[in-house]
Amino acid sequence: MAVYTDVSDEELTAFLVEYPIGEGLSCKGIAEGIENSNYLLTTESGVYILTLYEKRVNPDDLPFFLGYMEHLASKGVSCPTPIKGRDGESLRKLCGRPAAIVSYLNGMWPRRITPGHCARLGEAMAEMHIAGQDFGSGRANDLSLEGWRPLFEATAEGADRFGAGLAGELATELDALEAGWPAHPDDLPTGVIHADLFPDNVFFRGDRLSGIIDFYFACEDFFAYDLAICLNAWCFEVDGSFNITKARRMLTAYRKVREFSGLEIEALPLLARGAAMRFLLTRLYDWQNKSADALVTPKDPLEYLAKLRFHRDVKGPGAYGLD
Amino acid sequence: MAVYTDVSDEELTAFLVEYPIGEGLSCKGIAEGIENSNYLLTTESGVYILTLYEKRVNPDDLPFFLGYMEHLASKGVSCPTPIKGRDGESLRKLCGRPAAIVSYLNGMWPRRITPGHCARLGEAMAEMHIAGQDFGSGRANDLSLEGWRPLFEATAEGADRFGAGLAGELATELDALEAGWPAHPDDLPTGVIHADLFPDNVFFRGDRLSGIIDFYFACEDFFAYDLAICLNAWCFEVDGSFNITKARRMLTAYRKVREFSGLEIEALPLLARGAAMRFLLTRLYDWQNKSADALVTPKDPLEYLAKLRFHRDVKGPGAYGLD
Repeated sequence: MAVYTDVSDEELTAFLVEYPIGEGLSCKGIAEGIENSNYLLTTESGVYILTLYEKRVNPDDLPFFLGYMEHLASKGVSCPTPIKGRDGESLRKLCGRPAAIVSYLNGMWPRRITPGHCARLGEAMAEMHIAGQDFGSGRANDLSLEGWRPLFEATAEGADRFGAGLAGELATELDALEAGWPAHPDDLPTGVIHADLFPDNVFFRGDRLSGIIDFYFACEDFFAYDLAICLNAWCFEVDGSFNITKARRMLTAYRKVREFSGLEIEALPLLARGAAMRFLLTRLYDWQNKSADALVTPKDPLEYLAKLRFHRDVKGPGAYGLD
Repeated sequence: MAVYTDVSDEELTAFLVEYPIGEGLSCKGIAEGIENSNYLLTTESGVYILTLYEKRVNPDDLPFFLGYMEHLASKGVSCPTPIKGRDGESLRKLCGRPAAIVSYLNGMWPRRITPGHCARLGEAMAEMHIAGQDFGSGRANDLSLEGWRPLFEATAEGADRFGAGLAGELATELDALEAGWPAHPDDLPTGVIHADLFPDNVFFRGDRLSGIIDFYFACEDFFAYDLAICLNAWCFEVDGSFNITKARRMLTAYRKVREFSGLEIEALPLLARGAAMRFLLTRLYDWQNKSADALVTPKDPLEYLAKLRFHRDVKGPGAYGLD
């Protein structure tokens, strides 16, 4: 939850002149999204989301993110569509920051995950993967394998504060991941993935998935890595136990839309360990680098250590409910 | 800025069944309001504000606040109207807290105050004072004279940390205020006042005042005390200087709608000192009692010390632009 930038009425009015969406009626900072400042904007023509991109987003990546969202929306994927200004551009500046207006999606993210939610997610993720296949401009995943060792080195020294022996365990794990990680892009099917499909980025109305948001980690990587991230984010219970029913529903719904290969199934445990490592390391980093006036309490790194250990002990796809 | 309570989709759905406003489409925490959790709620019938009342609001006062808003709205004052459930009640419970839905107001609060804003505010405040005159159920102002000494005693010990000699200066000032404060209610015209009319509680569209929000400090007190609060909140520049043009525009616009007496004019400097004391003391208290995980940085108490000193040196109504 965060709003970092205060937009004045004068600045907003001048900004909206560039868009064919009518006069601004109100603009309220919303308590969602950690990386950027998000506002619920109402104008004479409707409701929108206005985003100001704060320092954690590389401005050079924004045309990729916005282009990908536009591409997905044009293919019928329910996601925010960037609104173009009168000059045809969807990216401009507001309060000295890159800024864009996107369409508003109804729905709420699920606080209590059901197997039904996981099935809808699997289906929508597969549709998103397929819809993105002809979206050309790739962006490397800077938070995958190559990014972990620098993050580990930046966090290892203080890691044992979170648990005795944590740095050692992560070092061993990192070696294993580097030794076994699939080679890009020959080993596994690759394309644009969301890479941050946590429950608060997926909206539902009742049991129906109404939209996916927050594409600001999207990148080119293994499709199965997106599944691995979601196994971690959606299929563990609050008490740490793994819910195999949720995993099975997610994976079987996914493969009804996009069949995955035997290689992808085999790779899942390792990919899920890697996905756990990624969030463990960024959470460690956020804890060790949080500013005194941070509006957000960093999330618990150890939640992801438990998930990592679970996948390390997995013997095969049966653990995820697959035959 | 604050959202304290997370409302789940299931809880929201069950809550909305009680209201004739259609199915909920989305509900986003908004980063406005410090005392309560506020959400922008969209339903099939439109946009609303959902408020969950957190611990700083006394639940016993809520019928007064909501009744006052409903009364004002029925008289044509542009303010949020409480939405009644099918049972005729506008106050119920959500997530274990008192909760209400109110109508949504367009507009944005002004970041850069102009004399024109102050004139519109004066006019709207006078209309609000008149509209509230036949609203019977009074609520005493627990943050007026009788409330200051306990607050002073709770904060005096640590006050000098904010400025050498602060506690002593406040003690002397408090004696003067207690000696000179007008007697209730005989000395000055009294009625329901807003008591927290800061710029972020007043919305404009361009130069037009489009609404007043946040009635959760409303109480019975001198009408001129509301003006005194606004002299402090709207007429000082960021550099601490007093803008007499803004004050004159506010007061003359007010008196075109509701003429004030010579006694009220004479009382203004003392009332403005008291209003400065009230916000100085609550800010001191908030600094000394902020929790480590507070989402809000308390506001600077010393800003109000400077305002207090200004009014103490005022010789007469000419200082506020009045003849």
